[in-house]
Amino acid sequence: MPAPAHAPQPEGPLFRIGSQRTFQGAGLREVAFPIGGIGTGTVSLGGRGQLRDWEIFNRPGKGKNLPLTFFSLWAQREGGPPLARVLEGRFQPPYGGVFGVPVPAAGLPRLASARFTGAYPFARIEFEDEALPLRVSLEAFNPFIPGNPEDSGIPVAVFLWTLANGQPHAVRATVAFSLMNAVGYDGVASLFSRRGHLYGQNLNQVVAEGPLRGLRMSSAKYDRQDARFGTMAVATTWPDVTACAHWKRAAWFDDIQRFWEDFSDDGRLDPSDESPTPDNETDIGTLGLVASLAPGETVRLPIVLAWHFPNLENYWNFEEPVRGKRLGNEYAMRFADAWDAARYTFENMERLESQTRLFHDTFFESTLPDYVLDAVSSQMSTIRTTTCLRTEDGRFHAFEGCADSSGCCPLDCTHVWNYAQSPAFLFPQLERGARRTDFASNTRLGGDMAFRTLVPLVGELWAHPPAADGQMGTILRLYREWQISGDESFLQKLWPHARRALEFAWEAWDRDRDGLMEGEQHNTYDIEFYGPNPMTSLLYLGALRAGEEMARALGEEQAAAEYRRVYESGRRRMEEVLWNGEYYVQRLDDIDKHRYQFGDGCLSDQLLGQWLASILGLGHLLPPERVRETLASIYRYNYRSGLAGHANPQRVYALNDEAGLVVCSWPHGGRPRYPFPYAHEVWTGVEYEVAALLIYEGLIEEGLTLVRSARERYDGERRNPWDEMECGHHYARAMSSWSLLLALSGYRYSAPRQSLGFAPRLRPEDFRCFFTAGEAWGSYAQRSDRSGQSHVVDLRCGSLALQRLELPRLAAEAGLALRRLSAAERDLEGRLAVDGEKLTVELARPVTLHAGDSLVVEIDA
Amino acid sequence: MPAPAHAPQPEGPLFRIGSQRTFQGAGLREVAFPIGGIGTGTVSLGGRGQLRDWEIFNRPGKGKNLPLTFFSLWAQREGGPPLARVLEGRFQPPYGGVFGVPVPAAGLPRLASARFTGAYPFARIEFEDEALPLRVSLEAFNPFIPGNPEDSGIPVAVFLWTLANGQPHAVRATVAFSLMNAVGYDGVASLFSRRGHLYGQNLNQVVAEGPLRGLRMSSAKYDRQDARFGTMAVATTWPDVTACAHWKRAAWFDDIQRFWEDFSDDGRLDPSDESPTPDNETDIGTLGLVASLAPGETVRLPIVLAWHFPNLENYWNFEEPVRGKRLGNEYAMRFADAWDAARYTFENMERLESQTRLFHDTFFESTLPDYVLDAVSSQMSTIRTTTCLRTEDGRFHAFEGCADSSGCCPLDCTHVWNYAQSPAFLFPQLERGARRTDFASNTRLGGDMAFRTLVPLVGELWAHPPAADGQMGTILRLYREWQISGDESFLQKLWPHARRALEFAWEAWDRDRDGLMEGEQHNTYDIEFYGPNPMTSLLYLGALRAGEEMARALGEEQAAAEYRRVYESGRRRMEEVLWNGEYYVQRLDDIDKHRYQFGDGCLSDQLLGQWLASILGLGHLLPPERVRETLASIYRYNYRSGLAGHANPQRVYALNDEAGLVVCSWPHGGRPRYPFPYAHEVWTGVEYEVAALLIYEGLIEEGLTLVRSARERYDGERRNPWDEMECGHHYARAMSSWSLLLALSGYRYSAPRQSLGFAPRLRPEDFRCFFTAGEAWGSYAQRSDRSGQSHVVDLRCGSLALQRLELPRLAAEAGLALRRLSAAERDLEGRLAVDGEKLTVELARPVTLHAGDSLVVEIDA
Repeated sequence: MPAPAHAPQPEGPLFRIGSQRTFQGAGLREVAFPIGGIGTGTVSLGGRGQLRDWEIFNRPGKGKNLPLTFFSLWAQREGGPPLARVLEGRFQPPYGGVFGVPVPAAGLPRLASARFTGAYPFARIEFEDEALPLRVSLEAFNPFIPGNPEDSGIPVAVFLWTLANGQPHAVRATVAFSLMNAVGYDGVASLFSRRGHLYGQNLNQVVAEGPLRGLRMSSAKYDRQDARFGTMAVATTWPDVTACAHWKRAAWFDDIQRFWEDFSDDGRLDPSDESPTPDNETDIGTLGLVASLAPGETVRLPIVLAWHFPNLENYWNFEEPVRGKRLGNEYAMRFADAWDAARYTFENMERLESQTRLFHDTFFESTLPDYVLDAVSSQMSTIRTTTCLRTEDGRFHAFEGCADSSGCCPLDCTHVWNYAQSPAFLFPQLERGARRTDFASNTRLGGDMAFRTLVPLVGELWAHPPAADGQMGTILRLYREWQISGDESFLQKLWPHARRALEFAWEAWDRDRDGLMEGEQHNTYDIEFYGPNPMTSLLYLGALRAGEEMARALGEEQAAAEYRRVYESGRRRMEEVLWNGEYYVQRLDDIDKHRYQFGDGCLSDQLLGQWLASILGLGHLLPPERVRETLASIYRYNYRSGLAGHANPQRVYALNDEAGLVVCSWPHGGRPRYPFPYAHEVWTGVEYEVAALLIYEGLIEEGLTLVRSARERYDGERRNPWDEMECGHHYARAMSSWSLLLALSGYRYSAPRQSLGFAPRLRPEDFRCFFTAGEAWGSYAQRSDRSGQSHVVDLRCGSLALQRLELPRLAAEAGLALRRLSAAERDLEGRLAVDGEKLTVELARPVTLHAGDSLVVEIDA
Repeated sequence: MPAPAHAPQPEGPLFRIGSQRTFQGAGLREVAFPIGGIGTGTVSLGGRGQLRDWEIFNRPGKGKNLPLTFFSLWAQREGGPPLARVLEGRFQPPYGGVFGVPVPAAGLPRLASARFTGAYPFARIEFEDEALPLRVSLEAFNPFIPGNPEDSGIPVAVFLWTLANGQPHAVRATVAFSLMNAVGYDGVASLFSRRGHLYGQNLNQVVAEGPLRGLRMSSAKYDRQDARFGTMAVATTWPDVTACAHWKRAAWFDDIQRFWEDFSDDGRLDPSDESPTPDNETDIGTLGLVASLAPGETVRLPIVLAWHFPNLENYWNFEEPVRGKRLGNEYAMRFADAWDAARYTFENMERLESQTRLFHDTFFESTLPDYVLDAVSSQMSTIRTTTCLRTEDGRFHAFEGCADSSGCCPLDCTHVWNYAQSPAFLFPQLERGARRTDFASNTRLGGDMAFRTLVPLVGELWAHPPAADGQMGTILRLYREWQISGDESFLQKLWPHARRALEFAWEAWDRDRDGLMEGEQHNTYDIEFYGPNPMTSLLYLGALRAGEEMARALGEEQAAAEYRRVYESGRRRMEEVLWNGEYYVQRLDDIDKHRYQFGDGCLSDQLLGQWLASILGLGHLLPPERVRETLASIYRYNYRSGLAGHANPQRVYALNDEAGLVVCSWPHGGRPRYPFPYAHEVWTGVEYEVAALLIYEGLIEEGLTLVRSARERYDGERRNPWDEMECGHHYARAMSSWSLLLALSGYRYSAPRQSLGFAPRLRPEDFRCFFTAGEAWGSYAQRSDRSGQSHVVDLRCGSLALQRLELPRLAAEAGLALRRLSAAERDLEGRLAVDGEKLTVELARPVTLHAGDSLVVEIDA
């Protein structure tokens, strides 16, 4: 029973299955694993165990590290000397700075080494130090449950410290968390000590409330409406605690000196009074969890850090109607303050942790290569970085990415977000909301869309000509949201706007309705293409196809027919006008008449519309062999196994010995004098797009090579694995990586049709991977052997109504017969249809799977 | 003939003689070798060959890198393809940043590797890249000639590019320097492109003037008195040049794109017009040197970068009489503009380069261990960083060090500058000027000294109680300047002030004149010691001894006698009151009555006064065995071979596996509750001080160990070898390293006595090292064998009048006889006296050596 044509034998490192990579030594330097809820801001766990990049103050904060905020351990083996350490691996070079290592208290002793593993949403650090009488490890995460944006949007970070006593002696230990009360901080000022003009009247209080113990942090300096107003909290349910509301308010280094000696002495802290700070000063508070470990005993110490800075304001726009206006945070509508968020987290910890862990386990118990899972999972994290917002009206908004201390660029940019797939498949309700913004708010009566949103939504639209690619792609994304949700009223409400947006192309870009875009086409390269070109035209064709489907579903047959007609014309025109024998080119009489064209260049992005169509099950927009030939050309001309000789005057995301896919090349000359900006760059967002399309088209090794080389660039020493950059950190485009999962599993889901399908491209004989279907998710597995093939849809969360399964034919034999069809252990009636390599299992009546149910299909060969 | 008691056999790595270390790979990351004249600001050569930290704008500028400013190479082997590269080694990780690698044009191809060697004042980089048809190396330096602060104070950087053609084909090549016209830059704003509100009306002009070719850069935007006013220039004497006054003023990346293509094409640049820039924009100009190399040919291409920003202002003080006031730069009195400085440099290049090279060669042709030469030479560079200023009144002023973009702390701080020895021995006229400031300007009528200077000198003195250590040390430094210069009128003029300053101790710190300091003693730890302690008391005893000598020289016998009396009392009291059996302690009834005392602690700095006395030939202030015992205790208790377990809440200059000498420890307990700030830190300035004193006292290996571990911390990856930090970069205290040279050579010079002496502590049988004597300098060598011993004072620069030589006895035999005594090949009359291990050669009449002359002494055993 041979494998299907395009499933290569899984040999070699490209096909490696295994656990996620581990970082150590120099590989820890750039690691910053973001922890925080959707729309809450984040704080990142650094590779050494330090908390870095505090971005909880309603804006990005790269390099903003709260002073004197760290975990520490006190431990004493029975009869041995006590020992105190900051629970971080040692600093890595360089050690320079105007006052030496530029971290306050950098000289407190740390641990010999740390090994960091991130498998989003869990980060794990194993510490080692021969001096310790205990083994110490940390697990850090945030509730992250696909389909549940609220429980994935709690303003907390959860830290689970595990201490294991492998000694024949009892060991006493304290794990303490010291935290600066940063209430009043504006997210921008430099941070070096607990002093600063933003502070004053900061108050730390020791709290015991039911089983909860902890510290509440507040400030009376700011009005409740002030952007700097907020609260912070540290809490635990561990019963034996020691706490110091605030360190000594002393000069020089005396505050640190006193705290460290107090802690080092016996692991118990001297209590302090609870009084607000003088002006220009804030406090450090410490909560310690005290444990006694018998020989062989292990304890798990839970600590929750919570924050609450409710008053998000528009700091990024210059347009007067929105500049400085209040937006608020959605999370603040659910939690009264930081302590409330901590309380909620502990009250629901079992559910939150187990569902998050179930998601993690379901995602990683996969037969996909480890680096593919890494590419997909690491970029999910962008959903909950400061790239994304959830305003108090419940809306989901997003920048393209984040500059160091501001979003960049604002907001809901249609062309960049064309690429981002993860949110739509993980939290589809958020993306439906975003389509409401796109169509109900940002689409003008004439059909031209503002491709960035001005918030709050006061009726003021951003004044810029529309983006041809963004506008067309957003129509495809409306189709996506409908397919994922099956929500017909949603579609009905937005379709009239979307129809205007689609047909706007006939005013602006395709007046002769031949299906090729012409004229001034602003696009994601931040410039305008002129004349027909594959990139915008193919998005247009995709939008026509999606429009056809949506119009037909809503009974608008005439519109559907016209879209189909124009699409068919466009398909032909693409071949006639743009095909150069290897790929599609831009046609312009004088390529230098306008700057920033690509002409005969081979554009990596030229099949973007096809990629979206493939993801959405809209099939080939162009002849399949042309798609494959084009992809092969892109790979051949634009993938570089090393970039040391690459002359790139633009921005640099890959260099030296690194491999990557350049945005464009001119293999046969004809480059315009001034190529478009970004042509020489390497974008992970495009690499994942091209990789997925290569995989869809059977060029598996090429696709996997692109993915692997991208992730190798993000190796912890060169770059942070959880921050793929482009115009800013945590760039949304890189969430194209979700399509790798879709392509490799051959995933296809249509809620309106209650149809779910898979066609694995790797290891079809023994395949398993994660899937989502609307708000539900689970694991899909298939196996085959001489006797036949079996398929299991294992639903882990939510509920899922299904009428149809589309599966691959794994056996070449002529006769196939349904052996078993069951859901939740009960047999179902159904019918198997065979169509070439495709099998369809049609249920006699729809079945609804609930969490824990499996749908099993067994087929005899 | 055994070696003297304290000269260990030179075996093992501690005694290694060799060339200076080479940096490569990760070791290049932090390298920044400062180039620029005294009081002119600097630009640093990075390890990869990049120019970094542009500090020519009248303030420090760590991290301020001029955009689009780099050297590049075009080369074409006859019949081969042309090739263009930026002349830098490839970037090192990390590669992250909001727009990728945070350097404009980072994506232009660079060279495979660079090997950096710095032997101050010369930096050398060997580049390697298999693609190159040439071998390429760079030598960069600045005129630096001891005794000649003007020629060591030219606002230029000299770059000598060497191209060697090892191929059997001819090679054509261009080395180009692209430079942003930064006139208008304030030294503070962030730098990322050639755009910015500080620019406008910037003009680049191509110049041909006699043999000089180059670019002049100016701006008409600022008034001649404006702090931002200035000029820049690039020049060469290479005849065949190609130049582009300014790159295309184009959007996006088009300026870079166009330049790089123009350059890459044929190594010749399209000329541009010469017009001033529009507002908010400046230009990049490029000068290329074109060469044709026959097979086997080598060419050296000289390029001088010059700058001229005349209008230094006091930006650092808040005191109204000086805040914002004009200070001007001394160099601007000598050069009309940047082009003038470049012209002067080329007109005098042969002399400037050969004298600088002579200094370099004389310094490094030494039998001292390589890392000792590194410690001494690397810290010389601080004299010409932005730590030091030369104002247009000719005065030399200095910060303690530099914060990233401002001096820190201002100015002429007496207690920190107590430690700095290099300037006094290299440019003694500058230090004499500084003593004029200290005594004639900063000493109040009552004798209390302002220990920081407010400039300009308008009669306003800094309002802070005096520093006990700074004030006493400065009296010793006055003695030093007199001994080095022999300038009696200088002494006469300042002594009355110095006498008031010395006797001020009797008002403030030693009212009972018992020779021990008491009461509030502000000091270099930025706090006050109370009660008697060795650190301030011993400086006081040293000052009394120096005062005695100066008073006696000026005929003030009564004062001299009183100083001696108090000194003798203090010696005794130190033993009675402060000696604890191992070292000297601070005595206070209640050590916690005042914060920040050290009590029973072992203070590394406690013998600072002895160190100065030893340097100045004032002998042992305390019983020699006690000095040795104390040093052994300091080494035993305060030197740590690793700091991973060291709990230091203060600033961190050494950590993890690094070794270092802590400032203080409490080996027998008794630590005050709040030890003084900096007690837990590691300061190179103190390490070199203690190391030199260990060497003076015969604890050679201990002393060398301190030096080696300090320099190992500055390894290019952890820290910049040419920037030892404390409260700021390029910290003056680290110029205590000059004392290593003095101690290891047993150097002693007295200009008033016309006496020069040596007593080498290492390899006395075959010793050679650099020395200075006033403004003159040269090499001292001695050898011994069974037949006797020979000594050569080889004067290389300046002139030196000598009456007496003090030499060590190398032969144990009883009878020694002068075999030969000659200067400049002419025999001299003289007499040999033997006193234990000391020999004195007394000339019948003084001889004056001139550059090139050798004084030779040969003694038969």
